[in-house]
Amino acid sequence: MNREPISELSKLCVHTITTKPWNINDAAKNYAASGVKGITVWRDALTGRNIRQTGQMLRDHDLSIVSLCRGGFFPNTDPEKRKLALDDNRKAIEEAFELGTQLIVLVCGADPAQSLEDSRKQIQEGIAELIPEASAAGIKLAIEPLHPMYADARSAINTLSQANDMTETLNSPWVGVAVDVYHLWWDPNLEKEIERCGKNNALLAFHICDWKTPTTDFLNDRGLVGEGCIPIRKIRTWVENAGFKGFHEVEIFSSRYWKMDQSEFLKQIITSYKNI
Amino acid sequence: MNREPISELSKLCVHTITTKPWNINDAAKNYAASGVKGITVWRDALTGRNIRQTGQMLRDHDLSIVSLCRGGFFPNTDPEKRKLALDDNRKAIEEAFELGTQLIVLVCGADPAQSLEDSRKQIQEGIAELIPEASAAGIKLAIEPLHPMYADARSAINTLSQANDMTETLNSPWVGVAVDVYHLWWDPNLEKEIERCGKNNALLAFHICDWKTPTTDFLNDRGLVGEGCIPIRKIRTWVENAGFKGFHEVEIFSSRYWKMDQSEFLKQIITSYKNI
Repeated sequence: MNREPISELSKLCVHTITTKPWNINDAAKNYAASGVKGITVWRDALTGRNIRQTGQMLRDHDLSIVSLCRGGFFPNTDPEKRKLALDDNRKAIEEAFELGTQLIVLVCGADPAQSLEDSRKQIQEGIAELIPEASAAGIKLAIEPLHPMYADARSAINTLSQANDMTETLNSPWVGVAVDVYHLWWDPNLEKEIERCGKNNALLAFHICDWKTPTTDFLNDRGLVGEGCIPIRKIRTWVENAGFKGFHEVEIFSSRYWKMDQSEFLKQIITSYKNI
Repeated sequence: MNREPISELSKLCVHTITTKPWNINDAAKNYAASGVKGITVWRDALTGRNIRQTGQMLRDHDLSIVSLCRGGFFPNTDPEKRKLALDDNRKAIEEAFELGTQLIVLVCGADPAQSLEDSRKQIQEGIAELIPEASAAGIKLAIEPLHPMYADARSAINTLSQANDMTETLNSPWVGVAVDVYHLWWDPNLEKEIERCGKNNALLAFHICDWKTPTTDFLNDRGLVGEGCIPIRKIRTWVENAGFKGFHEVEIFSSRYWKMDQSEFLKQIITSYKNI
Protein backbone atom coordinates (compact mmCIF):
# COMPACT_ATOMS: atom_id res chain seq x y z
CA MET A 1 0.00 0.00 0.00
CA ASN A 2 1.57 3.26 -1.10
CA ARG A 3 1.73 6.29 1.16
CA GLU A 4 -0.40 9.37 0.58
CA PRO A 5 0.92 12.26 -1.54
CA ILE A 6 3.25 14.49 0.45
CA SER A 7 1.36 17.80 0.14
CA GLU A 8 3.72 19.79 2.41
CA LEU A 9 7.35 20.81 2.23
CA SER A 10 8.96 19.95 5.56
CA LYS A 11 11.10 17.24 3.96
CA LEU A 12 11.84 18.93 0.66
CA CYS A 13 15.53 19.41 -0.08
CA VAL A 14 16.89 20.75 -3.36
CA HIS A 15 20.39 20.15 -4.73
CA THR A 16 22.24 23.29 -5.77
CA ILE A 17 22.99 21.64 -9.12
CA THR A 18 19.25 21.38 -9.78
CA THR A 19 19.18 25.15 -10.15
CA LYS A 20 22.69 25.41 -11.51
CA PRO A 21 22.29 28.90 -13.03
CA TRP A 22 21.84 30.33 -9.51
CA ASN A 23 24.85 30.91 -7.29
CA ILE A 24 24.47 29.49 -3.81
CA ASN A 25 23.31 32.82 -2.33
CA ASP A 26 20.48 33.10 -4.82
CA ALA A 27 19.66 29.43 -4.43
CA ALA A 28 19.45 29.75 -0.64
CA LYS A 29 17.34 32.89 -0.78
CA ASN A 30 14.91 31.45 -3.32
CA TYR A 31 14.68 28.00 -1.73
CA ALA A 32 13.94 29.52 1.68
CA ALA A 33 11.38 31.97 0.30
CA SER A 34 9.58 29.09 -1.42
CA GLY A 35 9.38 26.94 1.69
CA VAL A 36 12.14 24.47 0.81
CA LYS A 37 13.67 23.21 4.06
CA GLY A 38 16.87 21.49 3.01
CA ILE A 39 19.77 22.06 0.66
CA THR A 40 22.40 19.69 -0.66
CA VAL A 41 25.48 21.55 -1.74
CA TRP A 42 27.49 20.55 -4.76
CA ARG A 43 31.16 21.32 -4.38
CA ASP A 44 31.30 23.51 -7.47
CA ALA A 45 28.87 25.87 -5.71
CA LEU A 46 31.56 26.51 -3.08
CA THR A 47 34.35 27.48 -5.45
CA GLY A 48 36.05 30.69 -4.33
CA ARG A 49 33.84 31.05 -1.24
CA ASN A 50 34.50 30.98 2.45
CA ILE A 51 32.90 27.65 3.25
CA ARG A 52 32.28 28.29 6.93
CA GLN A 53 30.49 31.57 6.16
CA THR A 54 28.52 29.88 3.39
CA GLY A 55 27.34 27.26 5.87
CA GLN A 56 26.27 30.02 8.25
CA MET A 57 24.46 31.82 5.44
CA LEU A 58 22.49 28.65 4.69
CA ARG A 59 21.57 28.16 8.35
CA ASP A 60 20.54 31.82 8.55
CA HIS A 61 18.00 30.93 5.86
CA ASP A 62 16.78 28.08 8.07
CA LEU A 63 18.00 25.54 5.55
CA SER A 64 19.21 22.17 6.78
CA ILE A 65 22.44 21.29 4.99
CA VAL A 66 21.56 17.75 4.05
CA SER A 67 24.77 16.68 2.34
CA LEU A 68 27.80 17.65 0.33
CA CYS A 69 27.94 16.24 -3.22
CA ARG A 70 30.24 14.62 -3.97
CA GLY A 71 33.24 12.55 -3.06
CA GLY A 72 34.31 9.28 -4.63
CA PHE A 73 35.91 8.49 -7.99
CA PHE A 74 38.35 6.13 -6.29
CA PRO A 75 39.28 3.66 -9.06
CA ASN A 76 42.14 4.21 -11.43
CA THR A 77 44.67 1.94 -13.04
CA ASP A 78 47.30 4.51 -12.01
CA PRO A 79 48.15 4.30 -8.27
CA GLU A 80 49.24 7.96 -8.28
CA LYS A 81 45.80 9.00 -9.46
CA ARG A 82 44.17 6.85 -6.81
CA LYS A 83 46.23 8.73 -4.26
CA LEU A 84 45.11 12.07 -5.68
CA ALA A 85 41.49 10.86 -5.50
CA LEU A 86 41.94 10.02 -1.82
CA ASP A 87 43.40 13.48 -1.19
CA ASP A 88 40.40 15.02 -2.90
CA ASN A 89 38.07 12.98 -0.70
CA ARG A 90 39.94 14.18 2.38
CA LYS A 91 39.40 17.71 1.14
CA ALA A 92 35.69 16.95 0.74
CA ILE A 93 35.55 15.79 4.35
CA GLU A 94 37.12 19.09 5.44
CA GLU A 95 34.69 21.04 3.29
CA ALA A 96 31.72 19.14 4.69
CA PHE A 97 32.96 19.84 8.22
CA GLU A 98 33.41 23.56 7.51
CA LEU A 99 30.05 23.76 5.85
CA GLY A 100 28.39 22.03 8.76
CA THR A 101 26.83 19.01 7.10
CA GLN A 102 27.11 15.45 8.39
CA LEU A 103 26.98 13.61 5.09
CA ILE A 104 29.01 13.24 1.92
CA VAL A 105 27.55 11.43 -1.07
CA LEU A 106 30.02 9.23 -2.93
CA VAL A 107 29.90 8.70 -6.67
CA CYS A 108 32.30 5.84 -6.39
CA GLY A 109 33.92 5.86 -9.81
CA ALA A 110 35.05 3.30 -12.38
CA ASP A 111 37.91 3.07 -14.83
CA PRO A 112 37.02 1.58 -18.22
CA ALA A 113 40.64 0.42 -18.53
CA GLN A 114 40.18 -2.18 -15.79
CA SER A 115 37.58 -4.71 -14.70
CA LEU A 116 34.58 -3.77 -12.60
CA GLU A 117 35.87 -6.16 -9.95
CA ASP A 118 39.17 -4.26 -9.73
CA SER A 119 37.32 -0.96 -9.60
CA ARG A 120 35.12 -2.25 -6.77
CA LYS A 121 38.14 -3.40 -4.84
CA GLN A 122 39.69 0.06 -5.16
CA ILE A 123 36.43 1.70 -4.10
CA GLN A 124 36.29 -0.44 -1.00
CA GLU A 125 39.93 0.25 -0.14
CA GLY A 126 39.41 3.96 -0.71
CA ILE A 127 36.38 4.21 1.55
CA ALA A 128 38.07 2.09 4.23
CA GLU A 129 41.01 4.48 4.23
CA LEU A 130 38.73 7.49 4.71
CA ILE A 131 36.71 6.12 7.62
CA PRO A 132 39.03 7.37 10.40
CA GLU A 133 38.99 10.92 9.03
CA ALA A 134 35.26 10.85 8.37
CA SER A 135 34.63 9.60 11.86
CA ALA A 136 36.91 12.25 13.40
CA ALA A 137 34.99 14.96 11.54
CA GLY A 138 31.60 13.42 12.34
CA ILE A 139 30.80 12.98 8.65
CA LYS A 140 29.05 9.93 7.23
CA LEU A 141 29.83 8.64 3.76
CA ALA A 142 26.96 7.49 1.53
CA ILE A 143 27.71 5.04 -1.27
CA GLU A 144 25.37 5.97 -4.12
CA PRO A 145 24.81 3.10 -6.54
CA LEU A 146 24.64 4.53 -10.04
CA HIS A 147 22.60 3.32 -13.01
CA PRO A 148 24.33 0.55 -15.01
CA MET A 149 24.65 2.99 -17.91
CA TYR A 150 27.40 4.64 -15.83
CA ALA A 151 29.30 1.43 -15.13
CA ASP A 152 32.05 2.28 -17.60
CA ALA A 153 33.43 5.44 -16.05
CA ARG A 154 31.30 6.77 -13.17
CA SER A 155 30.55 3.93 -10.82
CA ALA A 156 31.25 0.23 -10.59
CA ILE A 157 28.54 0.07 -7.92
CA ASN A 158 25.36 -0.27 -9.95
CA THR A 159 22.79 -1.89 -7.71
CA LEU A 160 21.62 -1.33 -4.17
CA SER A 161 22.57 -4.92 -3.51
CA GLN A 162 26.21 -4.11 -4.28
CA ALA A 163 26.11 -0.98 -2.12
CA ASN A 164 24.59 -2.97 0.73
CA ASP A 165 27.23 -5.67 0.34
CA MET A 166 30.00 -3.10 0.56
CA THR A 167 28.41 -1.34 3.51
CA GLU A 168 28.14 -4.64 5.36
CA THR A 169 31.75 -5.52 4.54
CA LEU A 170 33.06 -2.15 5.69
CA ASN A 171 30.83 -2.46 8.74
CA SER A 172 31.25 1.09 10.03
CA PRO A 173 28.61 3.45 11.44
CA TRP A 174 30.20 6.08 9.19
CA VAL A 175 29.37 4.31 5.94
CA GLY A 176 25.91 3.89 4.44
CA VAL A 177 23.96 4.25 1.24
CA ALA A 178 22.17 6.89 -0.83
CA VAL A 179 19.10 5.69 -2.72
CA ASP A 180 18.44 7.61 -5.93
CA VAL A 181 15.29 6.58 -7.80
CA TYR A 182 16.82 7.53 -11.16
CA HIS A 183 19.56 4.98 -10.77
CA LEU A 184 17.63 2.17 -9.15
CA TRP A 185 13.98 2.22 -10.25
CA TRP A 186 14.34 -0.61 -12.78
CA ASP A 187 15.85 -3.10 -10.30
CA PRO A 188 13.51 -6.03 -9.50
CA ASN A 189 15.29 -6.45 -6.15
CA LEU A 190 14.84 -2.85 -5.07
CA GLU A 191 12.17 -3.27 -2.41
CA LYS A 192 14.07 -6.11 -0.76
CA GLU A 193 17.36 -4.23 -0.84
CA ILE A 194 15.83 -1.04 0.58
CA GLU A 195 14.48 -3.13 3.44
CA ARG A 196 17.92 -4.68 3.98
CA CYS A 197 19.53 -1.25 3.94
CA GLY A 198 17.04 -0.02 6.55
CA LYS A 199 17.76 -2.99 8.80
CA ASN A 200 21.45 -2.09 8.59
CA ASN A 201 20.60 1.49 9.67
CA ALA A 202 22.46 2.45 6.55
CA LEU A 203 19.86 4.35 4.54
CA LEU A 204 21.35 7.83 4.63
CA ALA A 205 19.82 9.73 1.71
CA PHE A 206 16.92 9.64 -0.74
CA HIS A 207 17.25 11.40 -4.10
CA ILE A 208 14.37 11.94 -6.51
CA CYS A 209 13.76 13.01 -10.09
CA ASP A 210 12.20 11.16 -13.03
CA TRP A 211 13.09 9.17 -16.15
CA LYS A 212 11.68 10.72 -19.31
CA THR A 213 10.72 8.81 -22.46
CA PRO A 214 12.67 9.41 -24.57
CA THR A 215 15.73 10.41 -22.57
CA THR A 216 18.07 12.16 -24.97
CA ASP A 217 21.24 12.68 -22.96
CA PHE A 218 23.14 10.32 -20.68
CA LEU A 219 23.64 12.99 -18.04
CA ASN A 220 21.52 16.08 -18.39
CA ASP A 221 18.02 15.07 -19.36
CA ARG A 222 16.39 14.13 -16.07
CA GLY A 223 12.76 14.95 -15.49
CA LEU A 224 10.72 16.60 -12.76
CA VAL A 225 9.10 14.09 -10.44
CA GLY A 226 5.93 12.85 -12.12
CA GLU A 227 7.22 13.64 -15.60
CA GLY A 228 8.45 10.13 -16.27
CA CYS A 229 7.94 6.47 -15.57
CA ILE A 230 9.63 6.02 -12.18
CA PRO A 231 7.21 4.80 -9.49
CA ILE A 232 8.48 7.43 -7.05
CA ARG A 233 5.65 7.17 -4.55
CA LYS A 234 6.07 3.44 -4.37
CA ILE A 235 9.81 3.74 -3.79
CA ARG A 236 9.26 6.50 -1.21
CA THR A 237 6.87 4.15 0.56
CA TRP A 238 9.54 1.43 0.65
CA VAL A 239 12.17 3.90 1.87
CA GLU A 240 9.92 5.22 4.64
CA ASN A 241 8.79 1.72 5.58
CA ALA A 242 12.49 0.92 6.01
CA GLY A 243 12.67 3.59 8.69
CA PHE A 244 14.06 6.50 6.69
CA LYS A 245 12.96 9.85 8.12
CA GLY A 246 15.28 12.18 6.24
CA PHE A 247 14.81 14.63 3.41
CA HIS A 248 13.51 13.97 -0.09
CA GLU A 249 16.21 15.50 -2.24
CA VAL A 250 15.30 16.81 -5.68
CA GLU A 251 18.35 16.29 -7.86
CA ILE A 252 17.68 17.15 -11.50
CA PHE A 253 20.40 17.58 -14.10
CA SER A 254 18.70 19.07 -17.13
CA SER A 255 20.01 21.26 -19.92
CA ARG A 256 16.39 22.00 -20.69
CA TYR A 257 15.42 23.16 -17.20
CA TRP A 258 18.68 25.04 -16.71
CA LYS A 259 17.65 27.21 -19.66
CA MET A 260 14.38 28.15 -17.95
CA ASP A 261 13.78 31.02 -15.58
CA GLN A 262 14.90 29.30 -12.38
CA SER A 263 12.16 30.85 -10.22
CA GLU A 264 9.59 29.35 -12.55
CA PHE A 265 11.46 26.02 -12.48
CA LEU A 266 11.51 26.07 -8.68
CA LYS A 267 7.72 26.55 -8.67
CA GLN A 268 7.40 23.48 -10.89
CA ILE A 269 9.70 21.51 -8.60
CA ILE A 270 7.50 22.33 -5.63
CA THR A 271 4.20 21.64 -7.37
CA SER A 272 5.41 18.32 -8.73
CA TYR A 273 6.99 17.35 -5.40
CA LYS A 274 3.75 17.73 -3.47
CA ASN A 275 2.21 15.11 -5.67
CA ILE A 276 4.72 12.31 -5.24
CA MET B 1 40.61 -18.95 -17.00
CA ASN B 2 39.59 -17.18 -20.20
CA ARG B 3 39.61 -18.95 -23.56
CA GLU B 4 42.13 -18.17 -26.26
CA PRO B 5 41.41 -15.51 -28.91
CA ILE B 6 39.18 -16.84 -31.66
CA SER B 7 41.50 -16.28 -34.66
CA GLU B 8 39.19 -17.93 -37.23
CA LEU B 9 35.76 -17.15 -38.58
CA SER B 10 33.71 -20.35 -38.47
CA LYS B 11 31.41 -18.90 -35.78
CA LEU B 12 31.25 -15.33 -36.98
CA CYS B 13 27.75 -14.06 -37.73
CA VAL B 14 26.92 -10.48 -38.67
CA HIS B 15 23.53 -8.79 -38.22
CA THR B 16 22.21 -7.08 -41.33
CA ILE B 17 21.62 -3.94 -39.25
CA THR B 18 25.35 -3.79 -38.48
CA THR B 19 25.93 -2.88 -42.13
CA LYS B 20 22.65 -1.06 -42.54
CA PRO B 21 23.65 0.89 -45.67
CA TRP B 22 23.90 -2.41 -47.60
CA ASN B 23 20.77 -4.13 -48.83
CA ILE B 24 20.59 -7.82 -47.99
CA ASN B 25 22.00 -8.92 -51.35
CA ASP B 26 25.09 -6.77 -50.91
CA ALA B 27 25.39 -7.80 -47.29
CA ALA B 28 25.24 -11.50 -48.20
CA LYS B 29 27.74 -11.16 -51.02
CA ASN B 30 30.23 -9.19 -48.95
CA TYR B 31 29.84 -11.29 -45.80
CA ALA B 32 30.39 -14.49 -47.76
CA ALA B 33 33.37 -13.08 -49.66
CA SER B 34 34.95 -12.05 -46.37
CA GLY B 35 34.57 -15.44 -44.75
CA VAL B 36 31.62 -14.60 -42.48
CA LYS B 37 29.63 -17.79 -41.93
CA GLY B 38 26.36 -16.61 -40.42
CA ILE B 39 23.82 -13.87 -40.90
CA THR B 40 21.07 -12.60 -38.65
CA VAL B 41 18.38 -10.89 -40.63
CA TRP B 42 16.59 -7.82 -39.38
CA ARG B 43 13.04 -7.63 -40.59
CA ASP B 44 13.50 -4.24 -42.28
CA ALA B 45 16.01 -5.94 -44.60
CA LEU B 46 13.14 -8.09 -45.93
CA THR B 47 10.78 -5.26 -46.82
CA GLY B 48 9.39 -5.69 -50.32
CA ARG B 49 11.29 -8.93 -50.93
CA ASN B 50 10.25 -12.49 -51.54
CA ILE B 51 11.30 -13.96 -48.23
CA ARG B 52 11.62 -17.57 -49.37
CA GLN B 53 13.86 -16.54 -52.28
CA THR B 54 15.88 -14.32 -49.97
CA GLY B 55 16.48 -17.28 -47.68
CA GLN B 56 17.61 -19.34 -50.65
CA MET B 57 19.92 -16.53 -51.77
CA LEU B 58 21.53 -16.51 -48.32
CA ARG B 59 21.98 -20.30 -48.33
CA ASP B 60 23.45 -20.06 -51.84
CA HIS B 61 26.12 -17.87 -50.27
CA ASP B 62 26.76 -20.62 -47.70
CA LEU B 63 25.48 -18.39 -44.93
CA SER B 64 23.74 -19.93 -41.94
CA ILE B 65 20.64 -17.91 -41.15
CA VAL B 66 21.14 -17.61 -37.43
CA SER B 67 18.03 -15.70 -36.45
CA LEU B 68 15.38 -13.20 -37.38
CA CYS B 69 15.43 -9.91 -35.46
CA ARG B 70 13.03 -9.13 -33.99
CA GLY B 71 9.73 -9.95 -32.40
CA GLY B 72 8.43 -8.76 -29.07
CA PHE B 73 7.09 -5.39 -27.93
CA PHE B 74 4.21 -7.11 -26.16
CA PRO B 75 3.28 -4.66 -23.38
CA ASN B 76 0.80 -1.89 -23.84
CA THR B 77 -1.83 -0.33 -21.62
CA ASP B 78 -4.20 -0.63 -24.58
CA PRO B 79 -5.46 -4.23 -25.08
CA GLU B 80 -6.08 -3.54 -28.78
CA LYS B 81 -2.42 -2.64 -29.24
CA ARG B 82 -1.37 -5.78 -27.40
CA LYS B 83 -3.44 -7.75 -29.87
CA LEU B 84 -1.75 -5.99 -32.79
CA ALA B 85 1.63 -6.81 -31.26
CA LEU B 86 0.68 -10.49 -31.09
CA ASP B 87 -0.37 -10.40 -34.73
CA ASP B 88 2.95 -8.87 -35.65
CA ASN B 89 4.77 -11.62 -33.76
CA ARG B 90 2.75 -14.24 -35.63
CA LYS B 91 3.86 -12.53 -38.82
CA ALA B 92 7.47 -12.74 -37.62
CA ILE B 93 7.08 -16.48 -37.05
CA GLU B 94 5.82 -16.85 -40.63
CA GLU B 95 8.69 -14.74 -41.94
CA ALA B 96 11.24 -16.78 -40.00
CA PHE B 97 9.73 -19.98 -41.38
CA GLU B 98 9.81 -18.66 -44.96
CA LEU B 99 13.34 -17.42 -44.52
CA GLY B 100 14.47 -20.75 -43.12
CA THR B 101 15.79 -19.76 -39.71
CA GLN B 102 14.91 -21.53 -36.47
CA LEU B 103 15.17 -18.57 -34.12
CA ILE B 104 13.45 -15.26 -33.46
CA VAL B 105 14.98 -12.79 -31.04
CA LEU B 106 12.46 -10.98 -28.84
CA VAL B 107 12.91 -7.41 -27.70
CA CYS B 108 10.16 -7.81 -25.20
CA GLY B 109 8.93 -4.24 -24.84
CA ALA B 110 7.76 -1.98 -22.03
CA ASP B 111 5.17 0.75 -21.70
CA PRO B 112 6.23 3.75 -19.60
CA ALA B 113 2.56 4.33 -18.80
CA GLN B 114 2.37 1.20 -16.65
CA SER B 115 4.51 -0.57 -14.06
CA LEU B 116 7.38 -2.86 -15.00
CA GLU B 117 5.52 -5.66 -13.22
CA ASP B 118 2.47 -5.17 -15.48
CA SER B 119 4.69 -5.05 -18.54
CA ARG B 120 6.41 -8.28 -17.50
CA LYS B 121 3.07 -9.99 -17.00
CA GLN B 122 2.00 -8.96 -20.51
CA ILE B 123 5.31 -10.16 -21.95
CA GLN B 124 4.86 -13.55 -20.33
CA GLU B 125 1.27 -13.84 -21.55
CA GLY B 126 2.31 -12.78 -25.05
CA ILE B 127 5.08 -15.34 -25.33
CA ALA B 128 2.86 -18.07 -23.87
CA GLU B 129 0.28 -17.35 -26.53
CA LEU B 130 2.86 -17.65 -29.30
CA ILE B 131 4.35 -20.99 -28.22
CA PRO B 132 1.92 -23.23 -30.15
CA GLU B 133 2.57 -21.36 -33.39
CA ALA B 134 6.31 -21.17 -32.82
CA SER B 135 6.40 -24.88 -32.10
CA ALA B 136 4.33 -25.70 -35.19
CA ALA B 137 6.75 -23.70 -37.33
CA GLY B 138 9.82 -25.15 -35.60
CA ILE B 139 10.94 -21.69 -34.48
CA LYS B 140 12.44 -20.97 -31.07
CA LEU B 141 11.87 -17.66 -29.32
CA ALA B 142 14.79 -16.00 -27.52
CA ILE B 143 14.03 -13.52 -24.76
CA GLU B 144 16.76 -10.89 -24.96
CA PRO B 145 17.20 -9.01 -21.70
CA LEU B 146 17.92 -5.37 -22.50
CA HIS B 147 20.10 -2.91 -20.61
CA PRO B 148 18.27 -1.14 -17.77
CA MET B 149 18.56 2.12 -19.71
CA TYR B 150 15.84 0.67 -21.96
CA ALA B 151 13.48 -0.26 -19.13
CA ASP B 152 11.13 2.63 -19.86
CA ALA B 153 10.02 1.75 -23.35
CA ARG B 154 11.97 -1.15 -24.89
CA SER B 155 12.11 -3.96 -22.41
CA ALA B 156 10.93 -4.65 -18.90
CA ILE B 157 13.30 -7.64 -18.88
CA ASN B 158 16.60 -6.08 -17.88
CA THR B 159 18.71 -8.85 -16.39
CA LEU B 160 19.54 -12.38 -17.38
CA SER B 161 18.09 -13.46 -14.06
CA GLN B 162 14.68 -12.13 -15.12
CA ALA B 163 14.94 -13.77 -18.53
CA ASN B 164 15.90 -17.08 -16.89
CA ASP B 165 12.99 -16.75 -14.46
CA MET B 166 10.56 -16.23 -17.31
CA THR B 167 12.03 -19.07 -19.34
CA GLU B 168 11.69 -21.41 -16.38
CA THR B 169 8.11 -20.30 -15.76
CA LEU B 170 7.12 -20.75 -19.41
CA ASN B 171 8.94 -24.07 -19.36
CA SER B 172 8.85 -24.75 -23.09
CA PRO B 173 11.60 -26.12 -25.35
CA TRP B 174 10.60 -23.33 -27.74
CA VAL B 175 11.55 -20.50 -25.38
CA GLY B 176 15.06 -19.51 -24.36
CA VAL B 177 17.37 -16.57 -23.98
CA ALA B 178 19.68 -14.35 -26.04
CA VAL B 179 22.77 -13.07 -24.22
CA ASP B 180 24.00 -9.71 -25.52
CA VAL B 181 27.17 -8.43 -23.86
CA TYR B 182 26.14 -4.80 -24.43
CA HIS B 183 23.06 -5.22 -22.27
CA LEU B 184 24.45 -7.47 -19.58
CA TRP B 185 28.17 -6.85 -19.06
CA TRP B 186 27.73 -4.74 -15.90
CA ASP B 187 25.68 -7.36 -14.03
CA PRO B 188 27.52 -8.86 -11.05
CA ASN B 189 25.36 -12.00 -11.36
CA LEU B 190 26.13 -12.57 -15.03
CA GLU B 191 28.43 -15.58 -14.74
CA LYS B 192 26.03 -17.38 -12.43
CA GLU B 193 23.03 -16.61 -14.62
CA ILE B 194 24.79 -17.73 -17.81
CA GLU B 195 25.55 -21.00 -16.07
CA ARG B 196 21.90 -21.34 -15.02
CA CYS B 197 20.76 -20.59 -18.55
CA GLY B 198 23.08 -23.27 -19.90
CA LYS B 199 21.76 -25.83 -17.43
CA ASN B 200 18.26 -25.04 -18.70
CA ASN B 201 19.43 -25.68 -22.29
CA ALA B 202 18.05 -22.23 -22.92
CA LEU B 203 21.07 -20.30 -24.19
CA LEU B 204 20.04 -19.69 -27.77
CA ALA B 205 22.10 -16.73 -28.99
CA PHE B 206 25.20 -14.70 -28.19
CA HIS B 207 25.45 -11.09 -29.41
CA ILE B 208 28.62 -9.02 -29.24
CA CYS B 209 29.73 -5.42 -29.63
CA ASP B 210 31.36 -3.01 -27.18
CA TRP B 211 30.56 -0.13 -24.82
CA LYS B 212 32.48 3.03 -25.67
CA THR B 213 33.52 5.71 -23.20
CA PRO B 214 31.90 8.10 -23.65
CA THR B 215 28.80 6.68 -25.28
CA THR B 216 26.96 9.58 -26.83
CA ASP B 217 23.68 8.09 -28.02
CA PHE B 218 21.26 5.74 -26.30
CA LEU B 219 20.83 3.59 -29.40
CA ASN B 220 23.34 4.14 -32.14
CA ASP B 221 26.77 4.51 -30.61
CA ARG B 222 27.92 0.95 -30.05
CA GLY B 223 31.54 0.05 -30.56
CA LEU B 224 33.47 -2.64 -32.41
CA VAL B 225 34.51 -5.50 -30.15
CA GLY B 226 37.64 -4.42 -28.31
CA GLU B 227 36.85 -0.74 -28.66
CA GLY B 228 35.26 -0.44 -25.25
CA CYS B 229 35.24 -1.75 -21.71
CA ILE B 230 33.15 -4.92 -22.01
CA PRO B 231 35.09 -8.05 -20.98
CA ILE B 232 33.92 -9.90 -24.09
CA ARG B 233 36.41 -12.74 -23.95
CA LYS B 234 35.51 -13.42 -20.35
CA ILE B 235 31.79 -13.47 -21.15
CA ARG B 236 32.42 -15.66 -24.21
CA THR B 237 34.28 -18.04 -21.93
CA TRP B 238 31.30 -18.22 -19.58
CA VAL B 239 28.89 -18.72 -22.47
CA GLU B 240 30.98 -21.51 -23.98
CA ASN B 241 31.55 -23.11 -20.56
CA ALA B 242 27.76 -23.16 -20.25
CA GLY B 243 27.64 -25.38 -23.33
CA PHE B 244 26.84 -22.82 -26.01
CA LYS B 245 28.21 -23.87 -29.40
CA GLY B 246 26.41 -21.36 -31.64
CA PHE B 247 27.48 -18.27 -33.53
CA HIS B 248 29.06 -15.12 -32.18
CA GLU B 249 26.80 -12.45 -33.62
CA VAL B 250 28.24 -9.00 -34.25
CA GLU B 251 25.40 -6.55 -33.72
CA ILE B 252 26.54 -2.93 -33.89
CA PHE B 253 24.19 0.02 -34.20
CA SER B 254 26.37 3.00 -34.96
CA SER B 255 25.66 6.22 -36.81
CA ARG B 256 29.41 6.64 -37.02
CA TYR B 257 30.14 3.26 -38.63
CA TRP B 258 27.11 3.46 -40.90
CA LYS B 259 28.72 6.57 -42.42
CA MET B 260 31.87 4.62 -43.28
CA ASP B 261 32.58 2.65 -46.40
CA GLN B 262 30.92 -0.63 -45.38
CA SER B 263 33.59 -2.84 -46.93
CA GLU B 264 36.19 -1.09 -44.81
CA PHE B 265 33.91 -1.42 -41.77
CA LEU B 266 33.46 -5.15 -42.43
CA LYS B 267 37.25 -5.54 -42.49
CA GLN B 268 37.42 -3.86 -39.09
CA ILE B 269 34.66 -6.13 -37.79
CA ILE B 270 36.61 -9.20 -38.83
CA THR B 271 39.97 -7.99 -37.51
CA SER B 272 38.50 -7.01 -34.18
CA TYR B 273 36.46 -10.23 -33.94
CA LYS B 274 39.51 -12.47 -34.27
CA ASN B 275 40.90 -10.89 -31.16
CA ILE B 276 38.03 -11.44 -28.76
